[in-house]
Amino acid sequence: MEPTAFTGAPLDRAADERRRDPDWLAAQRDHPAARAVLAGSGGLHLTDGGSPRVALLPLSEAGGDGALLLGIDAEGPVFAVDEDLAQAPAGRVPPMVGAGGMRGEPPERTASAQRGTRVVGQREAAGALPRTEGGLAAYATALLNWHRRHRFRANCGSPSEIAEGGLVRTCPACGAEHHPRTDPVVIMLVEDGDRVLLGRQPIWPTGRYSALAGFVEPGESLEEAVAREVAEETQVTVGPPRYLASQPWPFPASLMLGFVAPWVSGEPTVADSELEDARWFTRAEVAEAAREDEDDWADASSPDVLRLPPRLAIARRLVDIWLDA
Amino acid sequence: MEPTAFTGAPLDRAADERRRDPDWLAAQRDHPAARAVLAGSGGLHLTDGGSPRVALLPLSEAGGDGALLLGIDAEGPVFAVDEDLAQAPAGRVPPMVGAGGMRGEPPERTASAQRGTRVVGQREAAGALPRTEGGLAAYATALLNWHRRHRFRANCGSPSEIAEGGLVRTCPACGAEHHPRTDPVVIMLVEDGDRVLLGRQPIWPTGRYSALAGFVEPGESLEEAVAREVAEETQVTVGPPRYLASQPWPFPASLMLGFVAPWVSGEPTVADSELEDARWFTRAEVAEAAREDEDDWADASSPDVLRLPPRLAIARRLVDIWLDA
Repeated sequence: MEPTAFTGAPLDRAADERRRDPDWLAAQRDHPAARAVLAGSGGLHLTDGGSPRVALLPLSEAGGDGALLLGIDAEGPVFAVDEDLAQAPAGRVPPMVGAGGMRGEPPERTASAQRGTRVVGQREAAGALPRTEGGLAAYATALLNWHRRHRFRANCGSPSEIAEGGLVRTCPACGAEHHPRTDPVVIMLVEDGDRVLLGRQPIWPTGRYSALAGFVEPGESLEEAVAREVAEETQVTVGPPRYLASQPWPFPASLMLGFVAPWVSGEPTVADSELEDARWFTRAEVAEAAREDEDDWADASSPDVLRLPPRLAIARRLVDIWLDA
Repeated sequence: MEPTAFTGAPLDRAADERRRDPDWLAAQRDHPAARAVLAGSGGLHLTDGGSPRVALLPLSEAGGDGALLLGIDAEGPVFAVDEDLAQAPAGRVPPMVGAGGMRGEPPERTASAQRGTRVVGQREAAGALPRTEGGLAAYATALLNWHRRHRFRANCGSPSEIAEGGLVRTCPACGAEHHPRTDPVVIMLVEDGDRVLLGRQPIWPTGRYSALAGFVEPGESLEEAVAREVAEETQVTVGPPRYLASQPWPFPASLMLGFVAPWVSGEPTVADSELEDARWFTRAEVAEAAREDEDDWADASSPDVLRLPPRLAIARRLVDIWLDA
């Protein structure tokens, strides 16, 4: 087995008519270069070397009737396989493909001698992989998570079936189609001249503060969601927010939508059980924290020293954009 | 019965601890000023006067054990009631609260003598209502649609129950929580100097062209989705997109995320069955179309004359922003 690295060319998701053609789908499964990303509750299989990549295993070895077609790269079709479902398709599985290390616990790493890979928690994987590989990991994780959580139809309770190679589930009884869910989340810096408002969750490492964030509610624009979340969490009123960047965060299915919003009125008061504190930081404090190496964090346990979120998080990217502006 | 107009103050969605307190929720239902937005497969109940507003009916008249708490306005609690579910809670209902008029058919209007209201299809309502009222209509429609389509748990098939006054459904067996679904959709203008790329669906009125659009796929950033959708639909390659605006479109649960993206290469070729044509329009052509009154459209049936989407659509707002730039 020679895991082939994803070559960095954009994956063609084949999100079109081809997926509706059973003969075409069968040909992808039988393709001699058909490979699969393998993941399970323990995490994602990466190549076991110095510069890890997403392991692309021969589909025939990864196995599983429920293989989901991610798309086509330069060599051929690429699938995703949930190794826990492949082993016990009828059994109960946890609702999320391995999110180990999400809360700052030690990273999960398990060597898989059988596969010649190592199994790495998603957060660790996101930090370790080059950017194009991170995209592949995010796509596979998001799709596997959706299928784990949507094996039944929400409007009639019947079991549903995989269709279009995995981008759809259908009801055998009535043919209704169900598409993967992606949950938009707004994440925002509130700025007031040379200071920025950050919040802290009690579960985070000592000293860590980050951007405020929350799910978009039904019938809201992003801009309305930004204003509502800031008000709910800190009782601060903001002006029109400005969009900065987006990032998928498939744990299980979030899409982070980053903004900066000007402060208008109100002093930050924690008004929401999710946060234990929210306060202003000066540009100098934030710049100092941004210079720290993440590897030094374990030593720096003073609650009075700001620690920013890791570089893989969009919150950190928002801070870096703000510092550069 | 005197329908009370929504007063324009932002609705407090009470998306916090209050919703977890059964006593607080019961007090909202029993509140003497408890009112409800009423909607069903036929559409939304509006006040029956010259300047229509969302009809806020006394909750006791709107009825229904399944009333969903939208939030609190200056007068008291505001609920949403699905009149079809209230009348036949165990029966089968169509999956979407009235989307009449969505495809350019004649607007649905039904006088409801019993209620002193008129029932209006959602698209007609969105166009007729002032902006703050449109937000209330979007919120109520999105939440009612989600509950219609999610009466069962997608990961175990059991019936679920309304919780937190309607912002959550829970599984009585295991306590798992399910949150309303919002589907992010990218919608984008491709620009190349003084021309813009628009596409046309066969179902649209004669001459209508609009922005390209498509659902965000799992594990994608918004920017990746813009580039992928443009390439899939027209085989055109774009550069880094720039975010312009967002708009909820709760039919049943979309959130439209508007971008403009610079053309890089490729001549538009329709490569997707959703579109029958995609082509460049000059700034002069678009500006001329933007000056036309929507009421004149019925007369203008030449396929050679560009007709822009109606002003309530974000596609039109993107065009107006592009013209002003």
